[in-house]
Amino acid sequence: MKFELTILGSSSATPIHGRNPSAQLLNINEKFYLIDCGEGTQQQLLRFGLKASKIDTIFISHLHGDHYLGLMGLLSSMHLVGRTKVLTLFGPPELHELLQLHSKYSATQLRFPLIFKPTQVTAPIVILENSDVIVETIILTHRLHCTGFKFTTKPALPTLREDKVLDLAIPVAHRALIKKGFSFTDASGMVHTADSLTLPPPPKKSFAYCSDTLCNGSYAKQLEGVELLYHESTFLHDMIDRANETYHTTALQAGTLAANVGVRHLLIGHFSARYKDLTPLLEEAQSVFKATQLAIEGETFSI
Amino acid sequence: MKFELTILGSSSATPIHGRNPSAQLLNINEKFYLIDCGEGTQQQLLRFGLKASKIDTIFISHLHGDHYLGLMGLLSSMHLVGRTKVLTLFGPPELHELLQLHSKYSATQLRFPLIFKPTQVTAPIVILENSDVIVETIILTHRLHCTGFKFTTKPALPTLREDKVLDLAIPVAHRALIKKGFSFTDASGMVHTADSLTLPPPPKKSFAYCSDTLCNGSYAKQLEGVELLYHESTFLHDMIDRANETYHTTALQAGTLAANVGVRHLLIGHFSARYKDLTPLLEEAQSVFKATQLAIEGETFSI
Repeated sequence: MKFELTILGSSSATPIHGRNPSAQLLNINEKFYLIDCGEGTQQQLLRFGLKASKIDTIFISHLHGDHYLGLMGLLSSMHLVGRTKVLTLFGPPELHELLQLHSKYSATQLRFPLIFKPTQVTAPIVILENSDVIVETIILTHRLHCTGFKFTTKPALPTLREDKVLDLAIPVAHRALIKKGFSFTDASGMVHTADSLTLPPPPKKSFAYCSDTLCNGSYAKQLEGVELLYHESTFLHDMIDRANETYHTTALQAGTLAANVGVRHLLIGHFSARYKDLTPLLEEAQSVFKATQLAIEGETFSI
Repeated sequence: MKFELTILGSSSATPIHGRNPSAQLLNINEKFYLIDCGEGTQQQLLRFGLKASKIDTIFISHLHGDHYLGLMGLLSSMHLVGRTKVLTLFGPPELHELLQLHSKYSATQLRFPLIFKPTQVTAPIVILENSDVIVETIILTHRLHCTGFKFTTKPALPTLREDKVLDLAIPVAHRALIKKGFSFTDASGMVHTADSLTLPPPPKKSFAYCSDTLCNGSYAKQLEGVELLYHESTFLHDMIDRANETYHTTALQAGTLAANVGVRHLLIGHFSARYKDLTPLLEEAQSVFKATQLAIEGETFSI
């Protein structure tokens, strides 16, 4: 199953140094999920040859402009190119009012159904479940209502052992049942358990998106064992006071968190405009968690 | 006096083919005026090395997203980089409500004074006058409240004739008075009129911005004799029905209008996404008005 994350924007607050505000595109089994949508996200999709028409679900973490100001333009473009299929949008409750006011004053009635599902910050909950993935919120601590999102693929079925299929001449009709746990009785009357006929399923894949937040550990439990963690790292650790004041995270904190909760890979982003060269941020996180990479725009990370 | 227009966006409706939605930066005597502000305008300013901090006045023609969705991000960035000086914003009355709602939900209180001046569509009026320029609205006919803007430099004073200054040994103290129309009495008692001592002032410079509109001629009178006319030309004339339906203009109509009202140069833009190659639009306008150019992003037109 394909599980790929493409970075569309990695800048905090303002676009600068050729970096755009936050946006990421997650491809799970050829279904596309957009996570945050800073100004210029639709231009970034065009730039990297990614089709906005394929996006069916959008998640907005919070209402600072660098995380949502590209949304109205993206929805408007979807409307103008004739989209008819449903789009589901998750975000803070107030986002709906903002979209409605824009819609009213631009006299734009979207031609496609937009289903808005407000996020809550009381406790993490499952907000989406389909045949591929379960999405739950992560409650972050920022200056505004802010949630992260954790994507976990559904448990897959075990794989049939090909040697057993041949040796026992298992009929096609029985194979799906065995994968679901049913035993199989062969021509001689011997019973084979499902476990003896299958290999374990591929492991679940998971990705957690954490932006923007004070790195206070309150959401650490949910990150345990995640394959890929994206965590904002707005500052170097010499600016920890500024990070605390503005409810942001340093690269050292993100690396330490990744090490503590045992993720496989860490991706850092949401870089402050003060850093033209991102190497110091990467090195700082890597000093405590080796498997760290920078969220460089246009790059795709496979899980 | 410098009078330069730089194109930041030339696409209608959606960004496409590397083109961005509408925005133009006008430099009059090193004072900067932003006209419309589609999504990504702040990125375009960065791309072309233009300083957002120098902009003190913004004009928004109407509230279709491709003309204003970059405004919240631009104001937010001005705030974040520490702007303190006043910014004056002209636009449809509803723009203020949109900005206030964004400000409320993003919990952003701008650190600089933003003076909002609503435009009206009842009749063209002077909305700004300073030492360099007079700006008046142009009432356009679109699906929404929509105004264009006409910029005319203030009448300059006549230039002193250097030969006369030397021949008559005109003292410095008298020179400014002569430019203002006072006569001068020389050492022999002879009176010289101001006209005899000066050359005519340089002609006034003018620029008119017309986007978006049905090309119905209702605003033609205001364009007479303008040096540079920017006029939207969304379609080729074979799509005149579509242009009428959507209250837009064809390249042929824009060229014809420019010829009829006797402007010096015509700049066409707001190109439909259907045109990857803009040559046919240019040729169509030039077939009736030779001095037509395309509003290519990043290009600067001096008046």
